[in-house]
Amino acid sequence: MMAGLFITFEGGEGSGKTTQIRLLAQALESMGKSVLLTREPGGSEGAEKIRPLLVCGNANWDALTEVLLFSAARRDHLVNKIWPALKEGKIVLCDRFADSTLAYQGYGRKDDKELQQKLMDLYQMIAGDFRPDLTFILDVEPEIGLKRSCDRLGNNERRFEDMDIQFHQNLRQAFLKIAQQDSQRCHVIQTNRSVDDIHQDIMEIVKQYV
Amino acid sequence: MMAGLFITFEGGEGSGKTTQIRLLAQALESMGKSVLLTREPGGSEGAEKIRPLLVCGNANWDALTEVLLFSAARRDHLVNKIWPALKEGKIVLCDRFADSTLAYQGYGRKDDKELQQKLMDLYQMIAGDFRPDLTFILDVEPEIGLKRSCDRLGNNERRFEDMDIQFHQNLRQAFLKIAQQDSQRCHVIQTNRSVDDIHQDIMEIVKQYV
Repeated sequence: MMAGLFITFEGGEGSGKTTQIRLLAQALESMGKSVLLTREPGGSEGAEKIRPLLVCGNANWDALTEVLLFSAARRDHLVNKIWPALKEGKIVLCDRFADSTLAYQGYGRKDDKELQQKLMDLYQMIAGDFRPDLTFILDVEPEIGLKRSCDRLGNNERRFEDMDIQFHQNLRQAFLKIAQQDSQRCHVIQTNRSVDDIHQDIMEIVKQYV
Repeated sequence: MMAGLFITFEGGEGSGKTTQIRLLAQALESMGKSVLLTREPGGSEGAEKIRPLLVCGNANWDALTEVLLFSAARRDHLVNKIWPALKEGKIVLCDRFADSTLAYQGYGRKDDKELQQKLMDLYQMIAGDFRPDLTFILDVEPEIGLKRSCDRLGNNERRFEDMDIQFHQNLRQAFLKIAQQDSQRCHVIQTNRSVDDIHQDIMEIVKQYV
């Protein structure tokens, strides 16, 4: 049992995760809480060295290799950043975590049961029974999210943006399925509303935990 | 069942693997065989991108993270280089493979049963029942091997050379243990002899397979 609180934000490209994480961090800090912002893939010094292998457009791993790299990065992130911060009692806000790997790699390209099982075995291997206390799944229409995301990004980190629209439709369904399977932890947030309305919804839920 | 032949060379630092692989490759080619030389970590374009994360001195991964990175690199190496070459009927000679990971990460630092099991689970995950057809374990006194290795290397890739002598003693015992457990596949070669004598011993064994 760790002292802090671990909150993850998940969702497709351009769902507004980064904006909402910043607003939540500000709100929690103004309540006097100690907050750590982090992201995946990456987040720790070691994992950020693995990140370029995963997000740059020239990467061409087979699905299992990719999942092993994500797991290596996640293990480093847990050991060197997330777990120490939680032990210090901090609220850790993480932009993407294990649900993204399951959605993108396990469900997004094809519904690959064998790979899904390997993904879950790998997560158990690196994290044991540790899970986020709370996960927000920001739900967005792929057409709208992709437009936002591509307007913003340069050419470097747009590997997943370049995939076709069917992939992003699958991704959306995958996140909704994950939320359904773990409805205690996961909250689906509709994002076709103002940034402030979304933030208020998130705050209502977070307040029950802090 | 693959058409080619997969031969791996294992052993501590400075055991003469690289020299013996080259001599074996030359001998096989002079017999008209098609030979592919490769190495780990690395060996394929993708895995060579992971290699710097593993061999450079500033890496500071926890044991499990390191093992995940080795497994990712190995998976890429298998999928994109080793398996295609074997399917073409080539003889693949590999400088280090999975036994090195088990020896260095599983036994070398401490006899960590839990990590050894994870290592074996990971190998099964990436390779299924695929194993080398033949493995040469080049046995060398750590004091002698380390002197050779450090005389040769620059400052870049000497992470494992910098570890203490006890580590290298453990490593030697680990390789001998692996050879004992899988004596059909593994042949321990004594290296306190001339390069040519060692080569002749290796050729005697390889000739039974080609």
